[in-house]
Amino acid sequence: MNGNRFGRLFQVTTYGESHGDAMGVTVSGCPAGLELDESDVQAELDRRKPGQSMITTSRGEPDAVSINSGTQDGYTTGTPIGMVIENKDARSGKYEPFVTAPRPSHGDFTYSAKFGTRNWGGGGRSSARETVNWVAAGAIAKKILEREGIQVKAHVNQIGDIEAPPVTFEEMLEHTEKNEVRCAHPETAERMRDRIDEYQKAGDSIGGSIYFEARGVPRGLGAPRFDSFPARLGKAMFSIPATTSFEFGLGREAREWTGSDRNEDWEFSEDGDPVPEGNTHGGLQGGITTGQPIYGEATWHAPTSIPKTQKTVDWETGEEKEIQVVGRHDPVLPPRAVPVVEAMLNLTIVDFMLLGGRINPDRLDGRPGEYATEYHPSSPDNE
Amino acid sequence: MNGNRFGRLFQVTTYGESHGDAMGVTVSGCPAGLELDESDVQAELDRRKPGQSMITTSRGEPDAVSINSGTQDGYTTGTPIGMVIENKDARSGKYEPFVTAPRPSHGDFTYSAKFGTRNWGGGGRSSARETVNWVAAGAIAKKILEREGIQVKAHVNQIGDIEAPPVTFEEMLEHTEKNEVRCAHPETAERMRDRIDEYQKAGDSIGGSIYFEARGVPRGLGAPRFDSFPARLGKAMFSIPATTSFEFGLGREAREWTGSDRNEDWEFSEDGDPVPEGNTHGGLQGGITTGQPIYGEATWHAPTSIPKTQKTVDWETGEEKEIQVVGRHDPVLPPRAVPVVEAMLNLTIVDFMLLGGRINPDRLDGRPGEYATEYHPSSPDNE
Amino acid sequence: MNGNRFGRLFQVTTYGESHGDAMGVTVSGCPAGLELDESDVQAELDRRKPGQSMITTSRGEPDAVSINSGTQDGYTTGTPIGMVIENKDARSGKYEPFVTAPRPSHGDFTYSAKFGTRNWGGGGRSSARETVNWVAAGAIAKKILEREGIQVKAHVNQIGDIEAPPVTFEEMLEHTEKNEVRCAHPETAERMRDRIDEYQKAGDSIGGSIYFEARGVPRGLGAPRFDSFPARLGKAMFSIPATTSFEFGLGREAREWTGSDRNEDWEFSEDGDPVPEGNTHGGLQGGITTGQPIYGEATWHAPTSIPKTQKTVDWETGEEKEIQVVGRHDPVLPPRAVPVVEAMLNLTIVDFMLLGGRINPDRLDGRPGEYATEYHPSSPDNE
Amino acid sequence: MNGNRFGRLFQVTTYGESHGDAMGVTVSGCPAGLELDESDVQAELDRRKPGQSMITTSRGEPDAVSINSGTQDGYTTGTPIGMVIENKDARSGKYEPFVTAPRPSHGDFTYSAKFGTRNWGGGGRSSARETVNWVAAGAIAKKILEREGIQVKAHVNQIGDIEAPPVTFEEMLEHTEKNEVRCAHPETAERMRDRIDEYQKAGDSIGGSIYFEARGVPRGLGAPRFDSFPARLGKAMFSIPATTSFEFGLGREAREWTGSDRNEDWEFSEDGDPVPEGNTHGGLQGGITTGQPIYGEATWHAPTSIPKTQKTVDWETGEEKEIQVVGRHDPVLPPRAVPVVEAMLNLTIVDFMLLGGRINPDRLDGRPGEYATEYHPSSPDNE
Repeated sequence: MNGNRFGRLFQVTTYGESHGDAMGVTVSGCPAGLELDESDVQAELDRRKPGQSMITTSRGEPDAVSINSGTQDGYTTGTPIGMVIENKDARSGKYEPFVTAPRPSHGDFTYSAKFGTRNWGGGGRSSARETVNWVAAGAIAKKILEREGIQVKAHVNQIGDIEAPPVTFEEMLEHTEKNEVRCAHPETAERMRDRIDEYQKAGDSIGGSIYFEARGVPRGLGAPRFDSFPARLGKAMFSIPATTSFEFGLGREAREWTGSDRNEDWEFSEDGDPVPEGNTHGGLQGGITTGQPIYGEATWHAPTSIPKTQKTVDWETGEEKEIQVVGRHDPVLPPRAVPVVEAMLNLTIVDFMLLGGRINPDRLDGRPGEYATEYHPSSPDNE
Repeated sequence: MNGNRFGRLFQVTTYGESHGDAMGVTVSGCPAGLELDESDVQAELDRRKPGQSMITTSRGEPDAVSINSGTQDGYTTGTPIGMVIENKDARSGKYEPFVTAPRPSHGDFTYSAKFGTRNWGGGGRSSARETVNWVAAGAIAKKILEREGIQVKAHVNQIGDIEAPPVTFEEMLEHTEKNEVRCAHPETAERMRDRIDEYQKAGDSIGGSIYFEARGVPRGLGAPRFDSFPARLGKAMFSIPATTSFEFGLGREAREWTGSDRNEDWEFSEDGDPVPEGNTHGGLQGGITTGQPIYGEATWHAPTSIPKTQKTVDWETGEEKEIQVVGRHDPVLPPRAVPVVEAMLNLTIVDFMLLGGRINPDRLDGRPGEYATEYHPSSPDNE
Repeated sequence: MNGNRFGRLFQVTTYGESHGDAMGVTVSGCPAGLELDESDVQAELDRRKPGQSMITTSRGEPDAVSINSGTQDGYTTGTPIGMVIENKDARSGKYEPFVTAPRPSHGDFTYSAKFGTRNWGGGGRSSARETVNWVAAGAIAKKILEREGIQVKAHVNQIGDIEAPPVTFEEMLEHTEKNEVRCAHPETAERMRDRIDEYQKAGDSIGGSIYFEARGVPRGLGAPRFDSFPARLGKAMFSIPATTSFEFGLGREAREWTGSDRNEDWEFSEDGDPVPEGNTHGGLQGGITTGQPIYGEATWHAPTSIPKTQKTVDWETGEEKEIQVVGRHDPVLPPRAVPVVEAMLNLTIVDFMLLGGRINPDRLDGRPGEYATEYHPSSPDNE
Repeated sequence: MNGNRFGRLFQVTTYGESHGDAMGVTVSGCPAGLELDESDVQAELDRRKPGQSMITTSRGEPDAVSINSGTQDGYTTGTPIGMVIENKDARSGKYEPFVTAPRPSHGDFTYSAKFGTRNWGGGGRSSARETVNWVAAGAIAKKILEREGIQVKAHVNQIGDIEAPPVTFEEMLEHTEKNEVRCAHPETAERMRDRIDEYQKAGDSIGGSIYFEARGVPRGLGAPRFDSFPARLGKAMFSIPATTSFEFGLGREAREWTGSDRNEDWEFSEDGDPVPEGNTHGGLQGGITTGQPIYGEATWHAPTSIPKTQKTVDWETGEEKEIQVVGRHDPVLPPRAVPVVEAMLNLTIVDFMLLGGRINPDRLDGRPGEYATEYHPSSPDNE
């Protein structure tokens, strides 16, 4: 209801503002028996953290995570995992001009209109800083899914008018993390980089998009209708700040396709299973997974905080005024949103795996109801 | 979890299969004091029902609704409203060939893969017939929102390669329901109609899209993040069968816009309120309503049930075979999806109105906690 | 939120008022593959229905259930099961005097205070008639649990000052349904019967209690704390109209026991499992099942509708007046509440079985993700 | 689902184990505009903390709370409030003997049976230490309810065979916190104190109970049935570790009362409102509040950790053995459970107040949708 909870059986609950004391996330519903320590989470946070390059904000956050509960001797215990990430480099002062004079197209005004107040430093709760919590939770989901042979990957496929050609999953795995734009097509990545530079130098920002793919998701996940896989994934994607579109399979283009072109005949796989002859359907039929790769894309509008002069009004003084939002802001969102998209995919999938009975909700190994005969903290067998 | 529930405070719960005995929907959380009888619901159902024209299925369903509970003397009582719509013209026989030989790109296979069985007549639970329940529930939401000055409208803005020019809200109100395609641009509607005919005659089907707009939604609705307005609306739209994309505001195009072009300066309204100078943001900033119209669009792929010859496999016999899905199927989805989109909008908005404290959850009029001093069934004052 | 939903994975949603057109219940989350037809549900409804004897209301309801969806060829399909039970013998007229003059200690006033109106015929939504829906849903839960070797049974252990001696589970199975009081101790049942007669003849009513036991529930069910087994079961029991206490294990008496007396040493079972030497703990430790029988009891206050003269006020006329609630009312609740208690136990347990991964949420038999190779409606193997 | 969440609109989410790094609680759904700092929460934590007297565990926890988010300039902002309480005096060593040899009647075995592992230090997640989170959250609820004139109070009314006579609400307010037993009847408190001493010296423990009362709760709260006030309150009470019974109004005794004795005639209040002539109904009729005080009681069994010699089995070695649970354990639970009961009452009530539309969910003051014209951090008017 209040916007800080995600997941039905794999439950994520968050708190924190951009310039508050700390960000925090509680993960409940992670089965016992998963090997987990802070380095697993830190690896993902490091991919998202600010200050990675010239095209990201220069805010100096180490984003160091502490796990406060839910593990014993390096393994999860099935009880809630509490994590805290302290904010170390918050400088609220430069946001003072905007307290009652909202930045154009930012959440400043709607938050104040809703709550009659807001944490105004750095955008407060409306800041994309919140997504650090999601990436922390997603890191745990990812570790569970790896055991099941499920893998997700995303990359930036368009920035402004520069669009990358289609890439394979393998190319995404190989190239995405090797350039600061996180585009899996290296040549396009360079062009994107230059284009971002141009906008940044002009005191402006630019929109972009991300393509994602999930491999190894078993067929039969997703309930009909309101809990269909696309409904849940759509909700996940539109939760990410600044998302304005989401599509899967043929997406928006499907409006121009005939049934006979889009439909895919069934054939037998080598194992004698019915499989569709292609994957225009994006891994989802009737809202339920087919076992084919799930793919799609989403769009992020340009960051609203830009140095260019803009006009606003001050609701306290009644004055019209000009503002410049200088400081530490990303000129484009998708490069840092790639790990966020992956996190939301992992969180969505692991939740469906639990709901579909594919993962034991209490513990990853062992029969349900069997107690841990061999467990002892000093035993070499305790793993 | 199981796909038949929508809404948090305005709670919709459904059941029913295409060729089952009846469809049913329970609405809980409707405040007391709303004037409501079956004709209010029937009017919306009549817009969605099959057999309205040559471009919809010829199945002869009267879609007559019975309200079983939740009203007294023509007004809601605050307790659950149970509605039933009987299926009168179900003919399962012609679906027998597909029981173990799934139709291409339909939910036949995924439902069987998930549940190990399925109600195979007419697509069973995966059929869009289920949306009759949503339209019935949406009719109640609509009546509540009318009291608040909130109005939604949708129209078909693209079929195949035929795209309508932008239309105003007033044009949508005036023209949408006057042609069988439900396109608010009459000339385009005719061209769409002809194009659908062509595909239908060729034994094929075609995709399309719907544009929607909501007026009068007050600012401040929507919680941050996972319960943001776009996250909830995205979930609502992707719940509709065959949806492959959803976008709001600039949508997919936002990827090509700079911040300075997309951002909208704040100015004072006549009432001295900050208002944005335009509405590229689509009525939503930071996931919360700004008070500007909310607009967007969604895409439906072509219906998968087509008379053209297709190939499939029979998992029981192990044979490959050719099939033709003849019978009563829509050649295009958006015309009949217009009332469904409107219903999901109304349901989403009324839920946010309740959550945001804008509507008294117990009763529409009177102070909370005040009993009904004047109420008596035979009293002229009882309304 | 609105009081008509129970269960997390096994989801029950209800509607209906005592004198409305029909009662209805939707069960979602029942796995596919359960053999089910209306007679399974009817058998349980018949145990609860009115008019069974002189000590129950004489209202003549056949309580005939229709299953509108969710089954195919006699088996559940995994999709929502919609059931309707029509009200056939509602006579609202005699409730007119109470519309604005509430019956003492009934829900008449609180419903009006909350909603500003109410369905006043027969108590409307506040009537125990609603529990017919619960028993219908519980019948399905019971069928699932039977497959797992789980059995619940309840009996009336006290009426007024007449208390039954402790009985065994086997005695409950053998005797409970054989007398109209539903007390498993035949001699006490007769004394209870006579005492109820006395109160009934005096135009009065009397309170009572029910003891219940659940056998075969595996260990390890129930999450810590807010979703502990007792927390969920307590909620279930206090949902039943007129319940004023619930306790399990030693219950209220535990306040007088020392730790050393109450604690139970662990010993090895024949299978080498740790088992407690007794069951003062009532099958629950740390909020989680131990595998021992779960038992407890609950209290119902005397029915508030009595023929004896009582005083009330009319909030419309401002007059004080005397009323007599004559008509068709139970003089005591527990005899008809026995099937309701059993239903709530079955619903609570099946929900925990699903949440604990003990029952495949999609289908009862077969591996997850395996489609139904052998299924065909005309096949002799399809069961 | 996973036991760490309470509340529907006022949402509490917790983590932490007895001997983990820290306890944590996130409160979401607290409206903006509540004056709140750490001292408000600390005052309640200090009432619950260990080491207050000889009859509580000697564990030396300062229970100092940090608020990590959700406030600005001393007021809540409407966004999630994250709190952390570090564990400072955890000594796990002495629990090593019980890792695979469960303490009698403790959650040691059921946790291991469920999860296949557990955090065994100090009882881990099953420890009542978790309730520190609830008291922290409850402190916020209490502050909101104070503004509405709602007050709750509890006291210990029985320890072993020593029962306090009935006390008034005012006596509870005056005396409860003045003795270490938290019994509002000073003479009885002394006798209870002596009795606890006896058991403690004998290496044993004892059960007890708490009586509670809530004043000022407006009529009309609570939805019918599954979300009735007693159903939600029952769930809250049975969530508290070691609770074995809960009752309200006449409670268990109601089984012996006739309808004519228990029913309360309606009369007019001075304001002309219908009011019942008494309060045997405990403030709840039809599951909804009447406006009369809500009262009831609950029972806690004796603490299971006792120094007396007990028998257990080691599931790793297969040996039977004798154990003594020495160390820092409470000999009786109710004295420290009083603030926990009050917290759960406050949390339950505030949730119903929000759901019933009695408190603006977005902000405590001002009209919905009105932005904060006067707000500025440096303004003297900003409170």
